[in-house]
Amino acid sequence: MDSLILDVMKDISVKTESKIVLVVLDGIGDLPGSDGKTPLEVAHTPNMDRLAINSALGLMDPIYPGITPGSGPGHLGLFGYNPLKYWIGRGVLSALGIGLDMGPEDVAARGNFCTVDGDGKVTDRRAGRIPTELSARLCEKINEAVSEIDGIRITVRPEEEHRFVLLLSGEGLGPHVSDTDPQKTGLLPLEPQALDPASQKTADVVKRFIGVVKEVLKDEHPANMVLLRGFDKLPDIPSLQELYKLTPAAIASYPMYKGIARVVGMDVLKVEGHGELLEEKIELFGEAVSSHDYIFLHIKKTDSYGEDGNFENKVHQIEAFDELLPRILEKEPDVLAITGDHSTPCPMKGHSWHPVPVLLSAPYLRYDPCERFTEREALKGSLGRIYSMQLMSLMMAHAGKLKKYGA
Amino acid sequence: MDSLILDVMKDISVKTESKIVLVVLDGIGDLPGSDGKTPLEVAHTPNMDRLAINSALGLMDPIYPGITPGSGPGHLGLFGYNPLKYWIGRGVLSALGIGLDMGPEDVAARGNFCTVDGDGKVTDRRAGRIPTELSARLCEKINEAVSEIDGIRITVRPEEEHRFVLLLSGEGLGPHVSDTDPQKTGLLPLEPQALDPASQKTADVVKRFIGVVKEVLKDEHPANMVLLRGFDKLPDIPSLQELYKLTPAAIASYPMYKGIARVVGMDVLKVEGHGELLEEKIELFGEAVSSHDYIFLHIKKTDSYGEDGNFENKVHQIEAFDELLPRILEKEPDVLAITGDHSTPCPMKGHSWHPVPVLLSAPYLRYDPCERFTEREALKGSLGRIYSMQLMSLMMAHAGKLKKYGA
Repeated sequence: MDSLILDVMKDISVKTESKIVLVVLDGIGDLPGSDGKTPLEVAHTPNMDRLAINSALGLMDPIYPGITPGSGPGHLGLFGYNPLKYWIGRGVLSALGIGLDMGPEDVAARGNFCTVDGDGKVTDRRAGRIPTELSARLCEKINEAVSEIDGIRITVRPEEEHRFVLLLSGEGLGPHVSDTDPQKTGLLPLEPQALDPASQKTADVVKRFIGVVKEVLKDEHPANMVLLRGFDKLPDIPSLQELYKLTPAAIASYPMYKGIARVVGMDVLKVEGHGELLEEKIELFGEAVSSHDYIFLHIKKTDSYGEDGNFENKVHQIEAFDELLPRILEKEPDVLAITGDHSTPCPMKGHSWHPVPVLLSAPYLRYDPCERFTEREALKGSLGRIYSMQLMSLMMAHAGKLKKYGA
Repeated sequence: MDSLILDVMKDISVKTESKIVLVVLDGIGDLPGSDGKTPLEVAHTPNMDRLAINSALGLMDPIYPGITPGSGPGHLGLFGYNPLKYWIGRGVLSALGIGLDMGPEDVAARGNFCTVDGDGKVTDRRAGRIPTELSARLCEKINEAVSEIDGIRITVRPEEEHRFVLLLSGEGLGPHVSDTDPQKTGLLPLEPQALDPASQKTADVVKRFIGVVKEVLKDEHPANMVLLRGFDKLPDIPSLQELYKLTPAAIASYPMYKGIARVVGMDVLKVEGHGELLEEKIELFGEAVSSHDYIFLHIKKTDSYGEDGNFENKVHQIEAFDELLPRILEKEPDVLAITGDHSTPCPMKGHSWHPVPVLLSAPYLRYDPCERFTEREALKGSLGRIYSMQLMSLMMAHAGKLKKYGA
């Protein structure tokens, strides 16, 4: 069904003045803690409570029951794309994640610094998890040694610890190249192979790149070699402009979310500095709402505290958002949805497959019995149980941006 | 998933004596009015109330969350077809809508009488919305001037006001011809173009037809030209007989619903006269139930009053149906579903995307807490939230007409 729906959206969407706001409290869904309540239930949220009474609630499966989403698929769903159909490659997510600009012809891969023995066999796939600073120095050394191969520009940038990103820019690059990571120690790194004829040039360039790197790192220890995986280009995703005639903006402080937003065509507004920056985001929101008709506001820390298993701080983060909610409401968006890209339950210290609660504040809502924005209340909500990718068309409908389908 | 389900239905459906009745209260779903209640909640419906206590209720998305269906897609869903996959073209709906019989090789288009200036540029796409009587006279004039082109029979019939239907009958006609309506004034009408080789003959015939019409209308004012759009053939839809081994009948008084029913293979019973004709429909139902095992009974006015925003009359129409319900029940159908093809909320004066309540009275129902047939009660119903296209297999199952799938 979802393979047909985007074509329909293109046909029936119309440009209007109405404003849609999507607030993503990353990883908001949770499980009951020691007293049987989730962070959303424990948090003191007078503003969300008031909003919930006049909203419609429900639960959303980010992808499919039982599937735990990464941040890429989780957000693609919220933006109305079927995450089982559209895919953002590991290399691309890493590149976007550190804020690298990718062109449509570029290919990115995720790299690890690793350790090899005298025979060239891998003895540690992560080179003892070298610190980011060392990784940065090695990247610099590689960049100095090789900036171009066969007309292709080579960029190497550190991620955290032993991880880095390789970006290839130029003409004639296909994305389908096999991983060089053998996934086990005691084996030689694999040769990069083109998986289709259009990717032969990429494979050749990567092979020569690895040759150079081997030479550059030969006296380093423990990081004397690299492994590469997840080669990919930017995905071919129709933009939100194209599908929904929206002028969308993203307000996020972490690079990966900015990157995903850019992939679907959002204007990514400049958030200065690092960290959550709630106050700055809300100020930016105030400006964006006059120039854009769809605003994606991303709050990260709810997820981070879930990953840490820090129940108390997740509660505080929810309360911090609740205090700022009136400043969103005073801009009177026509449609406001508050939800998450997935659950990150504190007891699990990681993403999970549990459906996420969603709150929809909009005109033309029916009776809904929910009195708070919590997992338990959402269970009886009038939106029922939907997929995350279905939120987009619901928001569009309530915003008056969809014509009738068929006569 | 829905692309596979019809194949399964064909395999597992069996012919039995049991009777299925589908009552469609067109546009029944609504939103709360001034006192917070919907027409279904305000209406005095002792018979439906009694039925609801022993039925299963739920809410159905006609097509997809947020998508507002036209009558075509809305009904295709209720008959078990994915409305995103099966499509009835505008021309076909118009032809069926005025009761024209279409053969499988015929092509229909929707026409507008319009006004063009001395240069042939469109100055009014609707010719000042000329009255239906004038439109009828012009159609007659065209029919007299041209009844056949290149072996293709030409039929022109008035719809309401400036609208008419063009029907082409004969061999070798493809349906894919572009619209001639430029959609804006100040432009020339477009040339009809074949969008595939198989439709070349259609395009040629249409071009010559327009040439004749131009000549016929040249001294008329304001309707001195025509615009054509929505060329299509009858869709290639497997029939209910083929899929479910049913002997289905339709009881409807408005031509479009008769037409859609005919498209899926129903015997369309003759309802004399015009208008709602509730009494006559119920009488026909009494006869049909002995000769058919699936009966689609269509009630139109609930939708019409919704379109008018006439809350009170929608309530009365619901009550009028409720009074006749015992005469359906006395025929003891094995399975009875009451629902709508979409919502037509009075506050919105038009179709909407809101899910429609459905009531299923049948053997083998589980516990269901609903005490009335209303949107609010349906929210807690045991059918949960399903797609309209899923009602068909549920009815079939409760009627004992579906075998086990797999061993």
